[in-house]
Amino acid sequence: MNRTSRRLADGREILYFDDDRHPVERTTEDTRELPPVSTRSQLRYDALLAEWVAIASHRQTRTFLPPADECPLDPSRPGRPTEIPESEYQVVVFENRFPSLATAVERDVPPTAPGAPLAELRPGFGRCEVVCFTDDHDRVFAELGPDRARLVVDVWADRTEAMSAIDGIEYVFPFENHGEEIGVTLSHPHGQIYAYPYLPPRVEKILASVRRHRAENGSDLFAEVVDAERSGPRVVTANEHWTAFVPAATRWPYELQLFPTRRVPDIPSLTDEERDAFVDVYLDVLGRFARRMDTPMPYIASWNQAPVHDGREDWWLHLQLFSFRRAPGKLKYLAGSESGMGAFITDTNPEDVAEQLRNVKVTAE
Amino acid sequence: MNRTSRRLADGREILYFDDDRHPVERTTEDTRELPPVSTRSQLRYDALLAEWVAIASHRQTRTFLPPADECPLDPSRPGRPTEIPESEYQVVVFENRFPSLATAVERDVPPTAPGAPLAELRPGFGRCEVVCFTDDHDRVFAELGPDRARLVVDVWADRTEAMSAIDGIEYVFPFENHGEEIGVTLSHPHGQIYAYPYLPPRVEKILASVRRHRAENGSDLFAEVVDAERSGPRVVTANEHWTAFVPAATRWPYELQLFPTRRVPDIPSLTDEERDAFVDVYLDVLGRFARRMDTPMPYIASWNQAPVHDGREDWWLHLQLFSFRRAPGKLKYLAGSESGMGAFITDTNPEDVAEQLRNVKVTAE
Repeated sequence: MNRTSRRLADGREILYFDDDRHPVERTTEDTRELPPVSTRSQLRYDALLAEWVAIASHRQTRTFLPPADECPLDPSRPGRPTEIPESEYQVVVFENRFPSLATAVERDVPPTAPGAPLAELRPGFGRCEVVCFTDDHDRVFAELGPDRARLVVDVWADRTEAMSAIDGIEYVFPFENHGEEIGVTLSHPHGQIYAYPYLPPRVEKILASVRRHRAENGSDLFAEVVDAERSGPRVVTANEHWTAFVPAATRWPYELQLFPTRRVPDIPSLTDEERDAFVDVYLDVLGRFARRMDTPMPYIASWNQAPVHDGREDWWLHLQLFSFRRAPGKLKYLAGSESGMGAFITDTNPEDVAEQLRNVKVTAE
Repeated sequence: MNRTSRRLADGREILYFDDDRHPVERTTEDTRELPPVSTRSQLRYDALLAEWVAIASHRQTRTFLPPADECPLDPSRPGRPTEIPESEYQVVVFENRFPSLATAVERDVPPTAPGAPLAELRPGFGRCEVVCFTDDHDRVFAELGPDRARLVVDVWADRTEAMSAIDGIEYVFPFENHGEEIGVTLSHPHGQIYAYPYLPPRVEKILASVRRHRAENGSDLFAEVVDAERSGPRVVTANEHWTAFVPAATRWPYELQLFPTRRVPDIPSLTDEERDAFVDVYLDVLGRFARRMDTPMPYIASWNQAPVHDGREDWWLHLQLFSFRRAPGKLKYLAGSESGMGAFITDTNPEDVAEQLRNVKVTAE
């Protein structure tokens, strides 16, 4: 893998990742006149919920469903410069122009929110990167092919290591929001990576469960869950190194969790063989998601890595892949019970979902 | 308030609530031929997140956006029987025909989910009620007027007491999902009440914070938050008994919390005067939500009451009122950061939102 770091016109970093067989010089300058990126995000502490919330009100002006011929993630063409100065690319990563969190953030903030002594306030420090999976606007991840998908895995590993090394970062989260139905504002195939200066609530809760389970039972909760699911009725597909299953207490209409057979904390810890094996299973299940209904399901793919510092030895890397679509044309909405109370009601049966996904024909037509 | 309990053709309970000035006999029979309600919900324990999830796959066939002339919440007319046998009504409550949780649920379930010894399984015991605010299909809560709104408050109190008395119920949650944009499947003005056999995750988290704060500081976290907000810059409207403010660490584009001045655990504990004062403030803020943008904002109104048993003395009743709409035509989607990690990114500034809502003209045109 070749990795070239450059700067965009406003100072943001852009990284080109090219496979070893097709090394390219990445020297094209960004010729646009761009205003400097202004990030005034704040983190505020919700004392009742004991959670941080990022207040990123400057993002209201971000690009929203541009026409296909104005896509900012396409490569540049003469007369139409985009976020990527080169005229073609393989995988590209750059800092988000409308970041929720940024390293170049206003650091001089008051200690608490106005009139709220318990609502601790911190600068919106962190980093938000965009990962373009291909320069082909009309492709989707499921169609990338194993070589390109493997390059993306290596990019996730590279970015996890790089962002984990930033002082103050506690968690690195690669994810993909896919499909206009779930609010994706750019249709070009891309994912994102958020680097948070705190542990996200989901990670905190799972870590607490693992520690409580060890204290009470002397055993590894992750290992017990994975062992049971690997030989259970909800496996959709598996190979030597990875298993994709519908979790027993699924909260989304279509949800899979992909666990490696060997316990590792994060993507950088995966061997070459495990990365190739992940690509096999992931492209398989993405194909099943694409063909389960009349049109491809929207989805969120969400990497659950170990924290950067605290609790690495307790974690087991996994990918959560889920869709809000509960039936053709019908979305699951997070209404009163879920958004108000955090109490999930699932409209599908986990064993049925596993069987449906197993039965999807995945052979190319 | 007059309260009449009757049964629908399939055995579900229906309750008519009429104000004292217009007492009516509610004796009309439900003449429909209805199949018995079949509820096969299960609760499954997510061992990693330490949360219960309700699996309610039978709800996939529920009524979805019927045409206005087939609304099941309208009063019955000759030749068109609905869920409400009477030809007019004030406020009506009945058991949901497609309940996520029910008292008449299959009790004989295995102890754990198939192949998942850690995923404890319990019957989907509980109760889901529908609350029709008016028989006028085209009205909304903001237009009910103070008398009818007050009757609804009394109904919430009645139902909270009644459902709290059911053995096994731990939490009673009245809420309203409002607006097709957030997935409401029936447009007739109505809310719902869920009675859960467990504490919802939001309540568990807040209770833990209150207890931790008392142990560490010897003081009442709720009181400190409410005291600060009542005199702070995010108040939108208030009277002697209630204050509506944007929380300092808001997680929704438009969010208000309505707290009573006096600490009470739940709706039944409110005095007559406090109930009237709530109606004043609530109709005011609903009007602001309706007029803030070009079209009325969709919203979720979510009552945060004390648990039925554990932690009543720690709780402070409040209503959370929030909208997913972040700008005209633009919704906030719960994508990777929120749905994957539980880490909220808010696109609006809480102090700005408070000012915008204060500036909405609420006088009737």
